[in-house]
Amino acid sequence: MNVVSLIRKKRDGKALTIDEIGFLVNGYVEGKVTDYQFAAFLMAAYLRGLNKWETSALTSVMLFSGKVLDLSSIEGFKIDKHSTGGVGDKTSLILAPIAAAAGVKVPMISGRGLGHTGGTLDKLESIPGFRTDLDLDEFISVVNSCGTVLIGQTKDIAPADKLIYALRDVTATVESIPLITGSIMSKKLAAGIDGLVLDVKTGSGAFMKSLDDSIALAKSLIDTAKSFNKKVMAYITDMNQPLGNYIGNFLEVYESVKVLQGEEVEDLKSLSVTLSGAMIYLGDKAESVEEGIEISKELIKNGKAFDKFVEITKAQSGDVKYLHNPESYPKSKHHETIYAEKDGYLKSVDTYEIGMAALELGAGRQTLHDKIDFKAGLIFYPKIGDKINMGDKLVELFTDKEDKIESAKQMITGVLEFTDKKVENPALIKKVLD
Amino acid sequence: MNVVSLIRKKRDGKALTIDEIGFLVNGYVEGKVTDYQFAAFLMAAYLRGLNKWETSALTSVMLFSGKVLDLSSIEGFKIDKHSTGGVGDKTSLILAPIAAAAGVKVPMISGRGLGHTGGTLDKLESIPGFRTDLDLDEFISVVNSCGTVLIGQTKDIAPADKLIYALRDVTATVESIPLITGSIMSKKLAAGIDGLVLDVKTGSGAFMKSLDDSIALAKSLIDTAKSFNKKVMAYITDMNQPLGNYIGNFLEVYESVKVLQGEEVEDLKSLSVTLSGAMIYLGDKAESVEEGIEISKELIKNGKAFDKFVEITKAQSGDVKYLHNPESYPKSKHHETIYAEKDGYLKSVDTYEIGMAALELGAGRQTLHDKIDFKAGLIFYPKIGDKINMGDKLVELFTDKEDKIESAKQMITGVLEFTDKKVENPALIKKVLD
Repeated sequence: MNVVSLIRKKRDGKALTIDEIGFLVNGYVEGKVTDYQFAAFLMAAYLRGLNKWETSALTSVMLFSGKVLDLSSIEGFKIDKHSTGGVGDKTSLILAPIAAAAGVKVPMISGRGLGHTGGTLDKLESIPGFRTDLDLDEFISVVNSCGTVLIGQTKDIAPADKLIYALRDVTATVESIPLITGSIMSKKLAAGIDGLVLDVKTGSGAFMKSLDDSIALAKSLIDTAKSFNKKVMAYITDMNQPLGNYIGNFLEVYESVKVLQGEEVEDLKSLSVTLSGAMIYLGDKAESVEEGIEISKELIKNGKAFDKFVEITKAQSGDVKYLHNPESYPKSKHHETIYAEKDGYLKSVDTYEIGMAALELGAGRQTLHDKIDFKAGLIFYPKIGDKINMGDKLVELFTDKEDKIESAKQMITGVLEFTDKKVENPALIKKVLD
Repeated sequence: MNVVSLIRKKRDGKALTIDEIGFLVNGYVEGKVTDYQFAAFLMAAYLRGLNKWETSALTSVMLFSGKVLDLSSIEGFKIDKHSTGGVGDKTSLILAPIAAAAGVKVPMISGRGLGHTGGTLDKLESIPGFRTDLDLDEFISVVNSCGTVLIGQTKDIAPADKLIYALRDVTATVESIPLITGSIMSKKLAAGIDGLVLDVKTGSGAFMKSLDDSIALAKSLIDTAKSFNKKVMAYITDMNQPLGNYIGNFLEVYESVKVLQGEEVEDLKSLSVTLSGAMIYLGDKAESVEEGIEISKELIKNGKAFDKFVEITKAQSGDVKYLHNPESYPKSKHHETIYAEKDGYLKSVDTYEIGMAALELGAGRQTLHDKIDFKAGLIFYPKIGDKINMGDKLVELFTDKEDKIESAKQMITGVLEFTDKKVENPALIKKVLD
């Protein structure tokens, strides 16, 4: 096989075989295929596409570029959830304890936040002491004892993805459905799961802005999961406004604790129990997703879900006092509030900018080396369609960076659109695919 | 400006400005744009195309990446010819002396052979002592005294092209009309010419196999030349069989000398005087191309064209005894002949393979570092449509490499197709564009 002829084949719109994809991807990981040749291949793949067999082959090659966890010593159905990322999306913190409390095994491998989206790992690490860097033995032992564990991707898992992603990032080849699919699925499958629930976000705060693209991505992820014989469901969910109200790392832990303790944060609770319901159903602990949702709600009501969250936190060395008493968490130096300047209905929000405002306040990172301020962030109160009266509290900002307050306020107020006419709040769940 | 956003812009099919192309190309030459980013850009440009303004901008940026010769001290209209390369194409050796003898100035910058095509520089250097590495002062002095000069590309000329070509070669982005246009025109324009005659080959021995692609390339070259205010004409000419009969470096000098001395080598002479006729016309030394052709034929008949070739060879330090007496040139150790095994008409030739057979015998190079045997090559007698009788001499082979004779013979006989029915010899000139 010859690298140039394989690039040419994809450039001309022909499908590559699994052997040919293996030759390119493994060659790149081993340094035999140069970065400029792989970049040309990525652009050809971006523009010509990969069919579902090629995507599955890409996933497989990336998956086996590293370690595939052997979770055979964990009894029961092992399921994870993956979200394509959004603003205020803290459902993992809520659904993992629920699903585990329902008896399915949830070995969850999460990522860090970058740009406008937060990451589950950073949120968990805002709980002092919480360790996300468990080794395989600890990982298995926590799943066996608690039913769930929340860790980060180790460098043994799908190393090809890390290398390829870094190259895609600097060659304008990120937003490709087959390449995104390979990246997501190689990491998820490496965790040795039996099933997967997907939350594909759509809208102004999502990577996929259009519903069509989100559906195409969901289908590609489902096809690939099925080609590996996994049980899978996908929800296309709204990201035209933040999920819940709290944005920022410990702020999101705080809101998750409130939901686990029974507080009605409508959209966040609704999505969390839907996704956990699907996990419980795929894990054969319910006859239907609806029954899974009922079970989830009951596990919140009877306190078992919150207890499970406390149990996991303890097992992963986190300080549980901040779960029992979140108010005792350190506070930001500055606290500012944005009030409505006139009456109206909230019509739209550029959610990407809201995420970027939280980042500006210290809650996120621009590059992987930036340090996060766990206390920082904002509380975003209004939902699209809400009637707002002049003087209503719209957003609260928390930061140690006094010099960023003004720019963050402007970013937020600049992307809120109001109208005199009543508007509908967009449906949270746009579509379910399986 | 940001590299990734420019790659993305081209990826999404949008046109780049001249500033943006300059930022990318100059950035690449200066090492500020990485090779993997430039490779991604090249593939995006390959698949999305560049419009004529972008192509002109690319040419301009590549042109000004190096030295642009100042030929203002040379009086008269300065014109060059460019061929896209073929097998047996030695028209430069014939038309440069003709056009110079007619009074136009021909500062010709030529290339070396690679793969199945020969290069004018190698052919000239097969004349012992012939120097193609003149410096600018010598270059100008030879044009002033002889009316023409034949040199190689110096490293000062369009250095961006050399770098970019090397990257295209390993990233499957060679066969792109706008990228080919930028490469050709940046080098040609750097020679400070006023006009250009283009010979765009089409057929089995050409880089562009289809007539449509050849026409598209010719149009792109013409548009670009005109955007630089140059006089230009393009001929689309047949390369479905070798041009003339001799293939190999000194063998081609030998055939050129024969044509300059009045021998009727039909296709070769016809194309050479057509192209020189166009050069004479564009250089205002004739009222029409037809008159230019008549002038060319007359300059052959009265011996002035051959005398000019002798004069140039002397001026560039070549040993003219081999022009006056080509038979005295050293001979290859081995001489083999292929005879027709039955009667029939020659229907087709895979000319690429004929070029590769000559290379096999020592006449060409696979990589730029290979050494050429100037004596080696072949004489290819039949033309498509010729009536062949069993026992007719088809091809003579000349080589020092005894072990390559058999494979070269097989390469040749394997690509000659005969038929019982009469077939037409393809038209030599397919189309003229200006």
